[in-house]
Amino acid sequence: MASHKVQVGVIGGSGYVGGELLRLLVQHPHVEVAAVTSRTYKGKAIARVHPNLRGVPLSKFSDPDKLPEVDVLFTGLPHGLVMNQIENFTSIAEKVIDLSADFRLRNPVDYVTWYGKPHTQPSLLESFVYGMPELHRKTIQKACLVAAPGCTATAAILPLKPLVEAFDVRLVVVDAKVGSSAGGASVSLATHHPERSGVVRSFKPSGHRHTAEMVQELGLSEETISFSPHAVELIRGILATCHVFIDGDFTEQDVWQAYLRAYQSEPFIRMVKERAGIYRFPEPKLLAGTNYCDIGFEKDQHTGRLVVMAAIDNLMKGAAGQAVQCFNLMCGFPEDEGLQALALHP
Amino acid sequence: MASHKVQVGVIGGSGYVGGELLRLLVQHPHVEVAAVTSRTYKGKAIARVHPNLRGVPLSKFSDPDKLPEVDVLFTGLPHGLVMNQIENFTSIAEKVIDLSADFRLRNPVDYVTWYGKPHTQPSLLESFVYGMPELHRKTIQKACLVAAPGCTATAAILPLKPLVEAFDVRLVVVDAKVGSSAGGASVSLATHHPERSGVVRSFKPSGHRHTAEMVQELGLSEETISFSPHAVELIRGILATCHVFIDGDFTEQDVWQAYLRAYQSEPFIRMVKERAGIYRFPEPKLLAGTNYCDIGFEKDQHTGRLVVMAAIDNLMKGAAGQAVQCFNLMCGFPEDEGLQALALHP
Amino acid sequence: MASHKVQVGVIGGSGYVGGELLRLLVQHPHVEVAAVTSRTYKGKAIARVHPNLRGVPLSKFSDPDKLPEVDVLFTGLPHGLVMNQIENFTSIAEKVIDLSADFRLRNPVDYVTWYGKPHTQPSLLESFVYGMPELHRKTIQKACLVAAPGCTATAAILPLKPLVEAFDVRLVVVDAKVGSSAGGASVSLATHHPERSGVVRSFKPSGHRHTAEMVQELGLSEETISFSPHAVELIRGILATCHVFIDGDFTEQDVWQAYLRAYQSEPFIRMVKERAGIYRFPEPKLLAGTNYCDIGFEKDQHTGRLVVMAAIDNLMKGAAGQAVQCFNLMCGFPEDEGLQALALHP
Amino acid sequence: MASHKVQVGVIGGSGYVGGELLRLLVQHPHVEVAAVTSRTYKGKAIARVHPNLRGVPLSKFSDPDKLPEVDVLFTGLPHGLVMNQIENFTSIAEKVIDLSADFRLRNPVDYVTWYGKPHTQPSLLESFVYGMPELHRKTIQKACLVAAPGCTATAAILPLKPLVEAFDVRLVVVDAKVGSSAGGASVSLATHHPERSGVVRSFKPSGHRHTAEMVQELGLSEETISFSPHAVELIRGILATCHVFIDGDFTEQDVWQAYLRAYQSEPFIRMVKERAGIYRFPEPKLLAGTNYCDIGFEKDQHTGRLVVMAAIDNLMKGAAGQAVQCFNLMCGFPEDEGLQALALHP
Repeated sequence: MASHKVQVGVIGGSGYVGGELLRLLVQHPHVEVAAVTSRTYKGKAIARVHPNLRGVPLSKFSDPDKLPEVDVLFTGLPHGLVMNQIENFTSIAEKVIDLSADFRLRNPVDYVTWYGKPHTQPSLLESFVYGMPELHRKTIQKACLVAAPGCTATAAILPLKPLVEAFDVRLVVVDAKVGSSAGGASVSLATHHPERSGVVRSFKPSGHRHTAEMVQELGLSEETISFSPHAVELIRGILATCHVFIDGDFTEQDVWQAYLRAYQSEPFIRMVKERAGIYRFPEPKLLAGTNYCDIGFEKDQHTGRLVVMAAIDNLMKGAAGQAVQCFNLMCGFPEDEGLQALALHP
Repeated sequence: MASHKVQVGVIGGSGYVGGELLRLLVQHPHVEVAAVTSRTYKGKAIARVHPNLRGVPLSKFSDPDKLPEVDVLFTGLPHGLVMNQIENFTSIAEKVIDLSADFRLRNPVDYVTWYGKPHTQPSLLESFVYGMPELHRKTIQKACLVAAPGCTATAAILPLKPLVEAFDVRLVVVDAKVGSSAGGASVSLATHHPERSGVVRSFKPSGHRHTAEMVQELGLSEETISFSPHAVELIRGILATCHVFIDGDFTEQDVWQAYLRAYQSEPFIRMVKERAGIYRFPEPKLLAGTNYCDIGFEKDQHTGRLVVMAAIDNLMKGAAGQAVQCFNLMCGFPEDEGLQALALHP
Repeated sequence: MASHKVQVGVIGGSGYVGGELLRLLVQHPHVEVAAVTSRTYKGKAIARVHPNLRGVPLSKFSDPDKLPEVDVLFTGLPHGLVMNQIENFTSIAEKVIDLSADFRLRNPVDYVTWYGKPHTQPSLLESFVYGMPELHRKTIQKACLVAAPGCTATAAILPLKPLVEAFDVRLVVVDAKVGSSAGGASVSLATHHPERSGVVRSFKPSGHRHTAEMVQELGLSEETISFSPHAVELIRGILATCHVFIDGDFTEQDVWQAYLRAYQSEPFIRMVKERAGIYRFPEPKLLAGTNYCDIGFEKDQHTGRLVVMAAIDNLMKGAAGQAVQCFNLMCGFPEDEGLQALALHP
Repeated sequence: MASHKVQVGVIGGSGYVGGELLRLLVQHPHVEVAAVTSRTYKGKAIARVHPNLRGVPLSKFSDPDKLPEVDVLFTGLPHGLVMNQIENFTSIAEKVIDLSADFRLRNPVDYVTWYGKPHTQPSLLESFVYGMPELHRKTIQKACLVAAPGCTATAAILPLKPLVEAFDVRLVVVDAKVGSSAGGASVSLATHHPERSGVVRSFKPSGHRHTAEMVQELGLSEETISFSPHAVELIRGILATCHVFIDGDFTEQDVWQAYLRAYQSEPFIRMVKERAGIYRFPEPKLLAGTNYCDIGFEKDQHTGRLVVMAAIDNLMKGAAGQAVQCFNLMCGFPEDEGLQALALHP
């Protein structure tokens, strides 16, 4: 009974996050994709841009200015565009899930600090929920406006939140390794294959914007958490290595307890810490296409440091997958609906 | 009602084909995996070897000598081992799908020619059906014994069969580019990362065993078809470029007709031949985890040659996926049951 | 005594071929780089574009319209630009080595056929020598105008020429696998890392322009030689697999003799055909940065086909290296001057 | 005059470090390679194992038990083997440069702590110089026994030493990204291409043995410096990201001064910190085959942290290249003799 399906629109459907949303939504049993917009590709076949969707019955990219009313709208536009159109979007759809950075931060001042200019709709910031179910499930269930978290922010916040709650965290260094799809579908010399292939590139040693989300959601002071992302040879995936310094004694058993307490019922968090085998700790290549965040850790016996590794697929738990997880919560569907597919190996 | 599910066993479940079978079977709505054997890993957790199956409720690897009775048995052993145990296997299961090369060839002499020693059960060769649904669907539906085709053989036979039927094919050169998973899970210097990474390796310029399957299934004489595989930087995937020389005139329209006639109702064959975009022809990286064989072509206006490109995932349409497709046919399930997941992009 | 060095200019020095020329020229004992032009980067530091040249004492990119007189000019511009400026270039330098396609073909009609429009300086085509020393060494030694061959043309002509001379070659299919640097330094969606990484892309199944060079230099009829290049995951390197069909009997020993006769004194041709080890045949990854063309072969015992594999670095023997080899011949230097560095492994 | 060349032997010449040593030594103008041993490959051609050396006039691998007297011996054996044969080695050669870990640490207790068993020749530890010219040039010049540093130790010590001398360093986290060649030439499941390709693997989150060298050479307390290496998709190269926390105020200008003071005359240290371009910071892929250590940095304006990036080729500055640099110093040759070749780009 197609009429019972949730009508969904995707704004900015030609990017990588938009494509990943479509992959999930067309396979979702309770969704009908009503419209997918793209200013660049309007009138063109969707599979031309997202060739993995060949054979899927989908209309063409439509004009963003002629959007029909839908039940839920996913917005996958670059930063800075959604805030100026948000009233239009909320008039079209009852529920909006924004995948840009425009409504992730609560404090308007943070947009000046981290994004370099004032927010144009500061009064709306409080209306949005930060779309990380592990931290805000109940609020998301009742929300109409959700801001999906940044990819590296997700990879840092999820492993760190239970530690911040359980311990006296003095200092954290998050050193992330990121695949090329996190940079989006726009071409540049930096992403030209002969240049990008095989790099270990420190592209933003400090001051990365996602740091603001980490500070906000972890409730740490800005001085406490340092973040440095690196581009490595990989298309999908993030490994965030969190070097955590804790005041006071603790054992690995204490760390286990902290994670169990926080995450034992979470459908998309898995603890990965094995004694043998070649995948003893979280590995992003095992998560491509899945919504998992795998977390592992080890206490450094020499320095007392706690090393925590978290792996995600940046387009899934780091973007479209987490957005669909929120969508399921907002619509009352099982939280993992459309998100159960197993990853490939090798 | 789990009792209605087909009970399935996997012999040799620790290899890459075994792992891929498990990924498909545990997600198949009508299957219950009763046993997975591994001589090397017996008693060990399956996710230790196939970490993408973490969290899936599966028992451990069991002893191959203590196999329970099942409805269907998949055998994923190396070449030469199944022929000596086939009577044991058929006593345990009514239906056997063998993924090794042991029962692919009809003529016992071919085993001497291509595999270097006589077949030990030549009288059984006729009992097996070559498990390529596009060529033998009706026979497979009634079969109890199926031999799943070789991966590069699949990538060559599927694009060539309609041409052989429609045209007077004088000469074919199949030049294949193959990912590293096709070589299996056994380690060697040839697959050691620093050596294997970035190669374009002609590892068997002539005389590759899969040629025998091509000759048999295409009905061409041995002189007519030449095959050369190359290892390239890729984990999953095969692109078979078939350079086809045809006696008599033909147009691209004729080629389209030949493929339509043969494949227009096939669930896993897609024609890919586009005028624009960056994926105008079949591309294996778009097929990882799917059971598709994408086929494209172009007539060389200078030489009259027909260039045909076919792409598959070697572990899927080239092995486990095609085996499950056969399984569905043999059990009366929809042919694409458990095989519908979309690929990732990028 | 710097005054005795050959003064060299590089036109279009910001591309990959230009950068490779610079790498070779600044290390060449008898060369002084007098000017490197770039319309895009004029006034910018050369190491900004070619970061491997950091620390090398080089002036900045200069304005192409203000070129000083030099002894030898290398032109690394895109196709179609040199033919219109050639008189200017020959007025500046006594010797010109053009790395574009503008003067590679002898017959003006070929430019219409393969490049889609008439040559603007057809009368000059005969003045250029095709810069492949193995075929035209003596003419190059006396030449003032040299057209450096195309990269895939080099990888096909070098292995095929001795066979064409020794045997009655009936049909050749050249199936090439090519790294991303062969596409140049201009960005596009096709070369965007998330799209280009891991492909096995048939980007020009037939009608590739380099075919014209193969036909011309091998003296084969256009119907005899077919060429299909594929983009694979690799930055530098080409493997050309040549499937050769020969009229009349021949043995592998005959093939050895043909190559020995043609190439036994060649400094940059190596025969690679070993019985053991993992590099039994030519492998492009072993040639990065070198000027070698490695050639290997095997006779297919089933079909009589001769499979010949040739590997080069597309930026070296396929472009800048071969140009410097010609330069050495034209200037009377040892042919391998500046070209002796060993490759890396692994 | 070959008789004036230094006679050199390489023990354990079949590994990657051994191969890299040979590549450097056969191109070194003052060296004659007298013998290269390998227990596994004795009697086999060297190019069989190191195919980049094809065509180089070298004898075969010789029996380690029949080593001739030489002037200088390089030992490239796995850890634990040199200490038991060191007296034999010093009887054969006046100078020994050991590339294993056996003589890198001064304090015998460290071998128990970090390598798990007591050193068998503790009295000899003081006779060896830690072979890092930037720290111990004068001692190396007079030394007969040199221990070449570990690869990740080199990538951490070089960027950190000037900081430790100039500032009050409170805490350092070294997060390294390492290519597969650092793991050596021995095969394993962990390095099997389908498993290793595309990983971001935290293989030793804490307790890595090279930490001991960092502690020793930097003079920091063990609690002050934390080290976590990660295997990434890359064959050669290390990027060490050093997150440095300093007591007291400092500016980027102060950091520049510290590096200038320490390294302004160093032939193999380059500061890389640019405002524009895509290679603004050190990038290991630009260093393959060179002996450089590139160092860059940025002060985090939000946390006060200093982020320092250092890149090396693990087989060059991280092993064979640094060993040859020491060799040059020990023999009175120019320090960069045989180490001047430029890297490739792209």
